[in-house]
Amino acid sequence: MQSPVLVVGSLGLDSLRTPLGEVEATLGGTAAYFSLAASLYTDVWLVAAIGTDFPTSYRNEFEQRTIDLAGLQVLEGETFRWSGEYGYDLNVAETLDLQLNVFADFHPLLPAAYRRARFVFLANIQPSLQLEVLEQIERPALVAVDSRDIWIQMNRQELTDVIRRADIVFLNDAEIREYAQTPNLVAAGRSLLALGPRTVVVKKGEHGALLIDRDAVFAIPAYPHEVVVDPTGAGDSFAGGVMGYLASVGDPTIRAFRRAVVHGSAIASFTVESFGVDRLRQLSMADVLQRYRSFRYLTAFDEES
Amino acid sequence: MQSPVLVVGSLGLDSLRTPLGEVEATLGGTAAYFSLAASLYTDVWLVAAIGTDFPTSYRNEFEQRTIDLAGLQVLEGETFRWSGEYGYDLNVAETLDLQLNVFADFHPLLPAAYRRARFVFLANIQPSLQLEVLEQIERPALVAVDSRDIWIQMNRQELTDVIRRADIVFLNDAEIREYAQTPNLVAAGRSLLALGPRTVVVKKGEHGALLIDRDAVFAIPAYPHEVVVDPTGAGDSFAGGVMGYLASVGDPTIRAFRRAVVHGSAIASFTVESFGVDRLRQLSMADVLQRYRSFRYLTAFDEES
Repeated sequence: MQSPVLVVGSLGLDSLRTPLGEVEATLGGTAAYFSLAASLYTDVWLVAAIGTDFPTSYRNEFEQRTIDLAGLQVLEGETFRWSGEYGYDLNVAETLDLQLNVFADFHPLLPAAYRRARFVFLANIQPSLQLEVLEQIERPALVAVDSRDIWIQMNRQELTDVIRRADIVFLNDAEIREYAQTPNLVAAGRSLLALGPRTVVVKKGEHGALLIDRDAVFAIPAYPHEVVVDPTGAGDSFAGGVMGYLASVGDPTIRAFRRAVVHGSAIASFTVESFGVDRLRQLSMADVLQRYRSFRYLTAFDEES
Repeated sequence: MQSPVLVVGSLGLDSLRTPLGEVEATLGGTAAYFSLAASLYTDVWLVAAIGTDFPTSYRNEFEQRTIDLAGLQVLEGETFRWSGEYGYDLNVAETLDLQLNVFADFHPLLPAAYRRARFVFLANIQPSLQLEVLEQIERPALVAVDSRDIWIQMNRQELTDVIRRADIVFLNDAEIREYAQTPNLVAAGRSLLALGPRTVVVKKGEHGALLIDRDAVFAIPAYPHEVVVDPTGAGDSFAGGVMGYLASVGDPTIRAFRRAVVHGSAIASFTVESFGVDRLRQLSMADVLQRYRSFRYLTAFDEES
């Protein structure tokens, strides 16, 4: 049975520069990418903070996509702003400027209905805030958590507490190596499973993703783009595809988890084709299903050797 | 129809150190790894130079595996020696010591029968020597070439001449980026295809491999080992599996190329389980076929989304 998916994360105004161009103060933030992706599959409940300067057009866009904004906090002041630049290899963004603004005072407060959320995505925010969310949720079926280097370094204990209560952990390759203190991604994933989660998803950018559970590993490559315009939001839209798909299935099997990771990979492959959320906001399920089939061919080889 | 595969490369005595242990003066060299792998599939014709100190036991081992040594040159002096150490992440070997010895005077001279070789692997040696080999071969069906950073930097023109005459190019991710002067592996692969080869194989270590041809890309992940003992020879045994399989098929289709890359990946996954050639020399076709099936499960997801 289809469920909504709850996401708690950031909304912001991003300024992005890559070798192929730049864009100023456009819709960004982890929760924006996640919500736009997940809303292709199911209703999204969005919890985030914005300032009074957040464009009404972006709110309208969310609402037109069955992204519920009852959990959106409009705080006095300016919206979170991030300015980043990618070098030649598009690998890591250099932060040029970061203004937390209203995000500095954000404490997630869930509307009553959201407390019964079954599918929950804790986007990359301070682990103590992720714990505040979990305290408010009654009986989740599937909790997923994302994080990043700064929390691994500065708030390791709280992050570990979150991971202990999560079913799925999303981290990129550098992050999971740092958290698990091992260069081997499979060993790192397994060490996280020992804390409680049933699944670890390692995001490897141009090298695709790994889905690691107790019994097996599933590996999916990235879509083989010759040109990547802007990698911003690839990871969050990937997670949006994964979680949106799982919530649309309702009671996911191991095979559904694999399909979910392919959906996430398909969506991320579109995200990087344009600046910011541009491609994502135009995306249809037909596009996604076509790319799903491309992933089949990308990875296909004969059963008989 | 099954064909033998001709390999021209190095034989040496390697001393290897990794975080898990070390081994002294053991059988090594590109042609050793390639031949042991390829000989699982077909006869191997080995062209290389050794010194008078090269252990007879290694020669016997080759001959017992239908690795023909008519092209082996025994030169006055010592065998090529390499000593390398891998750090924590097992990513790149640091060369501790390198003694070319008899390899410095090596010029490949093909026995008459070898000149009719149809499947040819030019392992990583100086491009001018690779060209000398091609001059001696009458009408090859499939020429594959491997190379490395030093030749890309110092002998780019000769290397390009070799690539123009090759059907398959094997390079690792760092090498192809350097040769093609682009960070995007697919774009890099396509730029090499423009020189003439029908296929480019990008070896990505822990991230697997890409098979890039004009119409499509095939991506295969690496086998998800939690422990890698020694990555030495992974690339050359991978190529041995690919070329051995293709030569055993005789007239390979696109689908056979994909199967070949899975065979190469399976063999490389065994190579890294022990020091040097230890695991490779114990390997059976039954082992390889079992791992081929593991790769099926590693990459399997439902056709219906």
